[in-house]
Amino acid sequence: MVGQDDFFIRRTFTLAERGRGSVSPNPLVGAVIVRNGKILAEGWHKKYGGHHAERDAILKLAGQKPIKNCARGAVIYVNLEPCAHHGQTPPCTDIIIEAGIKKVVFAVRDPNPQVRKLGSVRILKKAGLEVVYPVLEQEARELNKVFFKNQTQSLPYITLKSAVTLDGKIADARGRSKWLTGPEARAEVQKLRLTHDAVLVGKNTVLQDNPRLSIRLTGIQKENYKIILGARGQFPKNTKLLKDPLAIFTVERDLKKLLAGLYREHKICSVLVEGGAAVNTSFLRSGMVDEWQLFIAPKILGGDALPVFGDLGIKKLADFKHAPIQSVQKIGADVLLNIRFNK
Amino acid sequence: MVGQDDFFIRRTFTLAERGRGSVSPNPLVGAVIVRNGKILAEGWHKKYGGHHAERDAILKLAGQKPIKNCARGAVIYVNLEPCAHHGQTPPCTDIIIEAGIKKVVFAVRDPNPQVRKLGSVRILKKAGLEVVYPVLEQEARELNKVFFKNQTQSLPYITLKSAVTLDGKIADARGRSKWLTGPEARAEVQKLRLTHDAVLVGKNTVLQDNPRLSIRLTGIQKENYKIILGARGQFPKNTKLLKDPLAIFTVERDLKKLLAGLYREHKICSVLVEGGAAVNTSFLRSGMVDEWQLFIAPKILGGDALPVFGDLGIKKLADFKHAPIQSVQKIGADVLLNIRFNK
Repeated sequence: MVGQDDFFIRRTFTLAERGRGSVSPNPLVGAVIVRNGKILAEGWHKKYGGHHAERDAILKLAGQKPIKNCARGAVIYVNLEPCAHHGQTPPCTDIIIEAGIKKVVFAVRDPNPQVRKLGSVRILKKAGLEVVYPVLEQEARELNKVFFKNQTQSLPYITLKSAVTLDGKIADARGRSKWLTGPEARAEVQKLRLTHDAVLVGKNTVLQDNPRLSIRLTGIQKENYKIILGARGQFPKNTKLLKDPLAIFTVERDLKKLLAGLYREHKICSVLVEGGAAVNTSFLRSGMVDEWQLFIAPKILGGDALPVFGDLGIKKLADFKHAPIQSVQKIGADVLLNIRFNK
Repeated sequence: MVGQDDFFIRRTFTLAERGRGSVSPNPLVGAVIVRNGKILAEGWHKKYGGHHAERDAILKLAGQKPIKNCARGAVIYVNLEPCAHHGQTPPCTDIIIEAGIKKVVFAVRDPNPQVRKLGSVRILKKAGLEVVYPVLEQEARELNKVFFKNQTQSLPYITLKSAVTLDGKIADARGRSKWLTGPEARAEVQKLRLTHDAVLVGKNTVLQDNPRLSIRLTGIQKENYKIILGARGQFPKNTKLLKDPLAIFTVERDLKKLLAGLYREHKICSVLVEGGAAVNTSFLRSGMVDEWQLFIAPKILGGDALPVFGDLGIKKLADFKHAPIQSVQKIGADVLLNIRFNK
């Protein structure tokens, strides 16, 4: 039944979400074990290095009893193709087979060709299990958009964050931008910091605001990487970020090279760019931006206030940069547009 | 019962809406006659010069029979205080009393002090009727926002309409703006033209686009006034608006004086300003704009593309122009923000 598959795969999405902010560079994964339409156990990947979702669900179901045949005749639903490789944990295909599961339904294949080559589908089928995929593939890709970008391009997922007036200004003529948006929108930005591995800013933002770029959310201890486009020597001694062990100062001007390096050397899977006009412009020109979170404040500045982008090399209307609006919502007195490039 | 009053007053709003685009300079009015919780008849003001809503409902209820006591013991609901004056039609208070109605429930008092002085409430009460008001007053004012502005300020209601990119540009560096938004948004603009008595444009728009500014909606014959900020002699002979009998060319630079004159001399109750940056800027600076319909297209232009406003005299962020966002909606691939000034 397709209806039932959709239902339980959606449940895996919800479970997978619980790992957001804790599992990077791993994907978000949830799993549900079902027999005769009844959920026997649920699992999810809680944090990097911890159990995979399939193992978590099976261990819960087994409890004190042996794993062997603990889920005999059941179906396991999972939002990503189960792994067949020995990583930090043994392969999920092994424990699925051991538990006596008869059918595996997963939403989307693993984006990594190396993982596919190991052939989890083949392994499961060879062991006599039925395997069904894809189910709600688009939603599953959306859930793990960071992981898919990482795996297919060896680059971090890039989110640009801007706060503008209704007429597209990010600051007055002297660069003052505190505060354009209201407290609800600013709290939303803190959540964006939480769900990205790093925050990136330009030299001017550091010189102007002397920010800490930390995550100010009650009950959250997490600290992110801070990427600063500038050399340490360019900043005065009282610059707070100079004392931050997670601050990375860089003078690399080739953004692709910079980002590839952050992914390769620091496992930074996602970057939130909180730029001024110069940084925004170079990121947009580079074609490296995946998503734009655009907060619009109920204000107008006009005149020579600072625009969100400088020269993008677009001479005529017909050559506009396409920026599809995926969603729109009211946040306090402000509006938040979610824009997707390259999608 | 407050619940019942709300219910039937909301019904008058729906009926009143049927007159939109046809009743100016009159307000939108609907009326419902109710006995024992059952609707006996509904009426509305259909077009300027036609019956008022109360009379329309009572005449429908009477049918071929005499008006006298046709609604004995009933309640009449209406979204605006009934008139007590002889205008193009006899006073509504007279026919309400004649029909034997025992109770009048209306949403909001007439904004015009001259009308109030005639004392419809006093007249009805003197005749032994119960009178209840206000009910859903805010909504009733919103429904007739144009009428309320007209009556209290002797000025037309001003709606600014703009189509911008995500970075606040209305055209490329050479002024090309066709088309920023998609077909759904452009159809919405046609509806805005339909619900305003006049469209206003600047000299540059006429020189650049040579528009007709007519209402292009299937089945609609209505023609609006077109206000052009420029002298007839400034435009080439092939300018389409020169041949339009409803085109008003003006060199009046005092916007308040201009708008007061349009209201006084032409009964223009509402103006849709479809300006470029120069017109937008002078309207915003004048403080005369009531509403801003801001269409945002999923495009970016950057650089020296034309901004929606020029210099507004705002030097620092703290002096921003407050522009509350009343609603936000997706229209095709675009977004429409409804902004209210002076509210």
